[in-house]
Amino acid sequence: MANGNDRFVNQIADINTDYTKWYTDVCIKSELCDYGPVKGTMVFRPYGYAIWENIQAEADKRFKAQGVSNAYFPMLIPQSFLMREAEHVEGFAPEVATVTHVGNTELAEKLVLRPTSETIIGNLYSKWISSYRDLPLKLNQWANVVRWEKTTRPFLRTSEFLWQEGHTVFATPEEANADALKMLEVYKELANDVLALPVLTGVKSEKEKFAGAVATYGMEAMMKDGKSLQSGTTHYLGDNFAKAFDIKFLDKDGTHKYVFQASWGISTRLIGAIIMAHGDERGLCLPPPVAPIQAVIIPIGAAKNPGVLTAANALHAELEKAGVRVKTDDRDQSPGYKFNHWELRGVPLRIELGARDLAANIVTVCRRDTSEKFTLPLDAVAQKTPELLAEVTRNMYAKADDFTKSHIVRVNSLDEMSAALDGGNFCDAYWCGDRECEDKIKQQYAATTRVHHHDQSDAHDHTCVCCGKKATKRIYFARAY
Amino acid sequence: MANGNDRFVNQIADINTDYTKWYTDVCIKSELCDYGPVKGTMVFRPYGYAIWENIQAEADKRFKAQGVSNAYFPMLIPQSFLMREAEHVEGFAPEVATVTHVGNTELAEKLVLRPTSETIIGNLYSKWISSYRDLPLKLNQWANVVRWEKTTRPFLRTSEFLWQEGHTVFATPEEANADALKMLEVYKELANDVLALPVLTGVKSEKEKFAGAVATYGMEAMMKDGKSLQSGTTHYLGDNFAKAFDIKFLDKDGTHKYVFQASWGISTRLIGAIIMAHGDERGLCLPPPVAPIQAVIIPIGAAKNPGVLTAANALHAELEKAGVRVKTDDRDQSPGYKFNHWELRGVPLRIELGARDLAANIVTVCRRDTSEKFTLPLDAVAQKTPELLAEVTRNMYAKADDFTKSHIVRVNSLDEMSAALDGGNFCDAYWCGDRECEDKIKQQYAATTRVHHHDQSDAHDHTCVCCGKKATKRIYFARAY
Repeated sequence: MANGNDRFVNQIADINTDYTKWYTDVCIKSELCDYGPVKGTMVFRPYGYAIWENIQAEADKRFKAQGVSNAYFPMLIPQSFLMREAEHVEGFAPEVATVTHVGNTELAEKLVLRPTSETIIGNLYSKWISSYRDLPLKLNQWANVVRWEKTTRPFLRTSEFLWQEGHTVFATPEEANADALKMLEVYKELANDVLALPVLTGVKSEKEKFAGAVATYGMEAMMKDGKSLQSGTTHYLGDNFAKAFDIKFLDKDGTHKYVFQASWGISTRLIGAIIMAHGDERGLCLPPPVAPIQAVIIPIGAAKNPGVLTAANALHAELEKAGVRVKTDDRDQSPGYKFNHWELRGVPLRIELGARDLAANIVTVCRRDTSEKFTLPLDAVAQKTPELLAEVTRNMYAKADDFTKSHIVRVNSLDEMSAALDGGNFCDAYWCGDRECEDKIKQQYAATTRVHHHDQSDAHDHTCVCCGKKATKRIYFARAY
Repeated sequence: MANGNDRFVNQIADINTDYTKWYTDVCIKSELCDYGPVKGTMVFRPYGYAIWENIQAEADKRFKAQGVSNAYFPMLIPQSFLMREAEHVEGFAPEVATVTHVGNTELAEKLVLRPTSETIIGNLYSKWISSYRDLPLKLNQWANVVRWEKTTRPFLRTSEFLWQEGHTVFATPEEANADALKMLEVYKELANDVLALPVLTGVKSEKEKFAGAVATYGMEAMMKDGKSLQSGTTHYLGDNFAKAFDIKFLDKDGTHKYVFQASWGISTRLIGAIIMAHGDERGLCLPPPVAPIQAVIIPIGAAKNPGVLTAANALHAELEKAGVRVKTDDRDQSPGYKFNHWELRGVPLRIELGARDLAANIVTVCRRDTSEKFTLPLDAVAQKTPELLAEVTRNMYAKADDFTKSHIVRVNSLDEMSAALDGGNFCDAYWCGDRECEDKIKQQYAATTRVHHHDQSDAHDHTCVCCGKKATKRIYFARAY
């Protein structure tokens, strides 16, 4: 990541006056990613990809604890497969990339690059599942997918992205729906504990649900501009794909029945969520569980005092042994330059070690999340760092949670909604449930329904924020990425 | 993996009379993989994918020890990029899949699905590299690639496969070439220690080298039918891609210079190598370091004696604690059925635990690699298993190494070559180095040059096995997958 002209690349736009440019500046200048040569594509540079690897490891272990196994299915799907589920093709066809030729030869059947894999996996499940003994079947794949989007932004919306897609199969609708809800909880725990990200979870509206699902559940995270980022979804698919791909099993009662399915996914979008929920005027602020570098040691005045580097290297080894992802920055640059460099990159802890510190057997520690500075005895650093990192994670979560809670506004009219949205808030509103009101709000205020409020108990006692008719739901409206 | 009709699926073709069918039977019936709906594609089922995950983990850690970082580049490459390196396009164009449409809209520029990523990575390296301080740059990506092949076989040759591709950049040709050689050593160590796979390593002929490389180095493994499987290659690319993509750096001497590059890859083909180098008449035989299940516990007579299952579960927990990947098969099936089931799947150790064993405080252990059966005190199993697994790995390597060494024949004439090849051997031969002889041997005997023999000292003292002219190289000829 060393770069001769860091002094200039470190300059990022002001988060308060130009949030959009701030976001892309942070993405590019912290070397998380770069633009690919084809419009709408992106490159995951090592620093960004390492965050994804850490998310993957944490997610994968949670999936396996749910009895899920990994597999890998072909990326190329016969175009005809997409057509078999009516809603599914309608939802995905416009953004699907199609392979027509190999070399100079035209293919007999056009192939699409998977936008998601329900169809091809359905085809194989129909082959593999024959008896109730084969159920439940819980597979996941880590893969690239392609959805051609008109407006693209790094991590948030690119024509190719990386994700995981879980595809589970059950004998009954209840089990399949329960799995979709269970995986939503798994995602929420991952967001909270690993990304320090508070999320709102709940049912999506008919309009916002996955093309081909009976119900979609989502988790929404609030970004610092008050917009929502859909950060993970789980779907109860009913027997829609079972019927389209003839996935049946012989039940204990001797009859053949269609299976019921769920699917669920999170993607490299989560990196965008981390950037926008935690970042600040100095750049990235990474949650320790996914930070590629959790602590950076800055030796100060090492040129004049070789003992400093020796001590830094010894501390580095100790921290590594304590399971901390540590880096020692011994480049020939000023301390101030290095402070900026690693602040931009969001490293949770900076450990400064100079000649005077060394003489006093201490180090100065600076937290990225609070800018708090304090000294620690040199021989206590390795032991204290893991708990410090855990404290940083908890504090980052608490800060983001406070921010989220203080930016949710109960609104009773469209005027209130408009003001709340313009003030960078989510709207907690009652809604009749009709698509027309949803469409009107989207058109007039650029806000969409995100997820149902967890408390639906009094929804029927209120009137719709838009049309004034009887409400059927309490739901969050927000502007969204 | 449980399946009601295992009794029938366990039947595989005879390895001695129909090696080809034996191979696909093992692939499919051990549930490593399945065929995809598009001709030439395959599905990695959980058991096969878990082997790949284990290979990945072992390889990734070795790459990182070489200072390599992971990144991810777009799969879609502008067709024009492929054209920039003349040999590269000639080599890959016929098997490249092309995306022409998104939805109903034709793309302005055709995009190809990466068959390998030198071109798109070259494009980005030209952006990222400007100074000698940016070198060396060592990136790797784990990705899917697409090469449309006419004849396909699971793991060995499929239109989409999974691999890693390392792309390294240096200031000098010497460093780049040294990296290609170093990574060949890393691959060899991985093959030997992790896959228990002996390999021959060396330079590839001009004809067999990578399209766009100055030199290709390969590792070749002997399968049980005496054919060779190219199991990994590393390439010294010179400045070919630097010139095609204008990758230059400002050197210390103040002048701009082209960089020199290497690239290197291993793929899911390695799973094919494991199957064919170690498998036998009973199916798979997996090297413990990559086996998804290293030990399977079979409780015997548990229905009549509940203590058996309790003891099995306790042993299971102990083995897990000892770091062993263990499975307890408590299905309602006969022991014989289970023995076949897990033998077909190549689990290294079977641990039988019955009522009589339990009374005597012992278990019966059966090694998949030797069929050796012996008892162990119940309380010593968890402690002994890791060393037993290491012994299995060593023995599997030694067996494969003996097999390889005893199937390499020095040949001095085409008649000797023909006989050696038909007898299932590699040929150790002297060769003039001319393409015509290589082509003639391929046409007449279906054998190709694999890699240079490590000892080239007396190559010039001999004559070419084909044309009788002065030899310039000692090289292995073999039939190959």
